[in-house]
Amino acid sequence: MKNKLFCQSDQKSLADIIFHRRDIRGNNFSNTPLPQTTLDEILLSAQLAPSVGLSQPWEFVIIRDKRTKNIIAKSHQVESELAKTEFSDKKQTLYSQLKLEGIKEAPINIAVFYKPSPEPVLGKHSMPEMGEYSVVCAIQNMWLTARALNVGLGWVSILNPETVKATLNAPKENKLVAYLCLGFVKEFLDTPELETLNWHQREPLNLIEEKYSI
Amino acid sequence: MKNKLFCQSDQKSLADIIFHRRDIRGNNFSNTPLPQTTLDEILLSAQLAPSVGLSQPWEFVIIRDKRTKNIIAKSHQVESELAKTEFSDKKQTLYSQLKLEGIKEAPINIAVFYKPSPEPVLGKHSMPEMGEYSVVCAIQNMWLTARALNVGLGWVSILNPETVKATLNAPKENKLVAYLCLGFVKEFLDTPELETLNWHQREPLNLIEEKYSI
Repeated sequence: MKNKLFCQSDQKSLADIIFHRRDIRGNNFSNTPLPQTTLDEILLSAQLAPSVGLSQPWEFVIIRDKRTKNIIAKSHQVESELAKTEFSDKKQTLYSQLKLEGIKEAPINIAVFYKPSPEPVLGKHSMPEMGEYSVVCAIQNMWLTARALNVGLGWVSILNPETVKATLNAPKENKLVAYLCLGFVKEFLDTPELETLNWHQREPLNLIEEKYSI
Repeated sequence: MKNKLFCQSDQKSLADIIFHRRDIRGNNFSNTPLPQTTLDEILLSAQLAPSVGLSQPWEFVIIRDKRTKNIIAKSHQVESELAKTEFSDKKQTLYSQLKLEGIKEAPINIAVFYKPSPEPVLGKHSMPEMGEYSVVCAIQNMWLTARALNVGLGWVSILNPETVKATLNAPKENKLVAYLCLGFVKEFLDTPELETLNWHQREPLNLIEEKYSI
């Protein structure tokens, strides 16, 4: 299969998957269990992601246990109340109406860690963030693969990464990059919820030709 | 198109695109010019990426000018020599044989910046890295879209981000997340070059069920 070439139908499939990917929250997960084969396909796509110097610096923790989910959900609540105070009064009212995560509702949660290599890594010397960035590439592969399998994925960033690490007994050197919620959904919305609810609008791309003008 | 469902053929297309994506370097770019419509499709996929709080915190600088490329290529050379000294003598010999970027060979370079919002961003309070991570999601969308269009993309991280910023007159608050090389290729390899050349091997996925054991 050397030099595999893709055709218009492949290109259309990918463009549609990218267009229809959404962040899924607790108001939209169904309680249908997720088959192991589906989870395996999603994880395989992570394994095939690019990584700096082929270092594959990721670790995935699969969480199904309700007690664990409850502790993480509590951390979300605490951090969400703290974060809310950053916004204007008007935005705070809207913030309170938003459902921003599906930790308890999703059948599967996945904590995704960056695990730094003890050895030097090709390509990381002048940009040390490349390790974490590799993990994010893996997560985006998972997000698209989940969507193609008609499975919802939500990325929860409103929580305390140290609480997640402690709850999972994660090694000290690991860094939490993402906490993901995974499961079938009631529906995939056409438009991001934050846009529909007027939190923020989608914008044209910030594109500069050659150089910023000074 | 609400609740769009994907079928097996879409799933296979995506899985194949993910499997056949490669990092492309200067030994593999052809000098066929890239049509503007192709570049536009790749950039559109970036625009449709997930972003924390729908903040879309990205800026793209399209570089075609040879003088600009020469300055960036110089920065790569300097940083590459510095980075090489991290490795064992045996690895240094192999390192010297690797072609790690395609800055001058690729018809188009794209500098991708994270532009922090002056306003608070939903979802960033307890994990401030989420802004940069959103930009990486956009880059992975571009990488897969390029591959689907049979276009090569290479991510160069061996360079000085401050040199890139200064060369492009980028605003002070912007952070360089990636420097990408884009163009048609001579061939797409079946196996990552770093694996073929025995720099590093692909590994099984680091998967933990529920919790790390202590």
